[in-house]
Amino acid sequence: MVRASVLRYGHRSVRDYRVTSHCALVARAFGAEGITICGEEDESIRRSIEKVSEKWGGTFSVGFSDSWKNEFKKFRKRRNSAIVHLTMYGIPLQKAIGKIRKFGNIMAVIGSQKVEGAVYGDSDFNVSVTQQPHSEIAALAVFLHELFGGKELERKFPNAKIRIIPKEKGKKVLKGE
Amino acid sequence: MVRASVLRYGHRSVRDYRVTSHCALVARAFGAEGITICGEEDESIRRSIEKVSEKWGGTFSVGFSDSWKNEFKKFRKRRNSAIVHLTMYGIPLQKAIGKIRKFGNIMAVIGSQKVEGAVYGDSDFNVSVTQQPHSEIAALAVFLHELFGGKELERKFPNAKIRIIPKEKGKKVLKGE
Repeated sequence: MVRASVLRYGHRSVRDYRVTSHCALVARAFGAEGITICGEEDESIRRSIEKVSEKWGGTFSVGFSDSWKNEFKKFRKRRNSAIVHLTMYGIPLQKAIGKIRKFGNIMAVIGSQKVEGAVYGDSDFNVSVTQQPHSEIAALAVFLHELFGGKELERKFPNAKIRIIPKEKGKKVLKGE
Repeated sequence: MVRASVLRYGHRSVRDYRVTSHCALVARAFGAEGITICGEEDESIRRSIEKVSEKWGGTFSVGFSDSWKNEFKKFRKRRNSAIVHLTMYGIPLQKAIGKIRKFGNIMAVIGSQKVEGAVYGDSDFNVSVTQQPHSEIAALAVFLHELFGGKELERKFPNAKIRIIPKEKGKKVLKGE
């Protein structure tokens, strides 16, 4: 099974709080192992995502870095790894995903509007989820969904204190250790 | 081909500006025909999405409503229609999507944290994209991606003034009428 992690590029504290939080929650819910946030350090995001994991289970790491280049270097030491930058300018997802799935370790890079050119150059794949402007949150979700072939939708999160029992109408929640 | 539109429930102006904008852009990019925003009216969102359509092509409508119940009623007059509320408490997407694809007209409803109980009751399907907390933006993208079976990734937007030519590295953009 392929392993995935996420690098969030260019986080600005306060302004990007909600969007970066959504990115982190999507990374966790869709089966990535962790997110590294580059840009301004923002302890409140780490705390809020860690609270989610405590309650909803699983292990998901939130880290910060002041250098995406260092993160690229560190990641490249893993065996069978590929760095996938999600950008509307890249090769369409549906064309690239077959090749990408052959790697064992994927780091998905998501930016905001201004991503420096070197990120394009240093990534192994630049991949577009549509060639239209939309949302890095959506691009990440659809990318992970395709990477894991839909199996992430069935994923279990061990040690959850709360668990949803799917219902046609209304809400059903199981609580307890 | 199934037709889709989106209802955004509970928009609060300023606080939700960025998240609702992302929802609208995702709706457009993933092939929905329009979005209706319920909650506080917010002309700045309409203007910014209309600017995107002018530049990037296609027809995509942005409307406001002060009553989701009216929108449900209006939508039900369409033939072969189904209202699909995206919520972490609902039936898993992978189980429900086969039935949903049989309808010709889909309205996807996305809320924020507090959605009143009647929305669950009045929707034809309550559908979960994972049973984990994440993002309505991501849920909408993955839902539309599954609804259209990936064909939305190939979608053309007529009358675009700007168009991206996918590239392995860097950016290539065609401009002009």
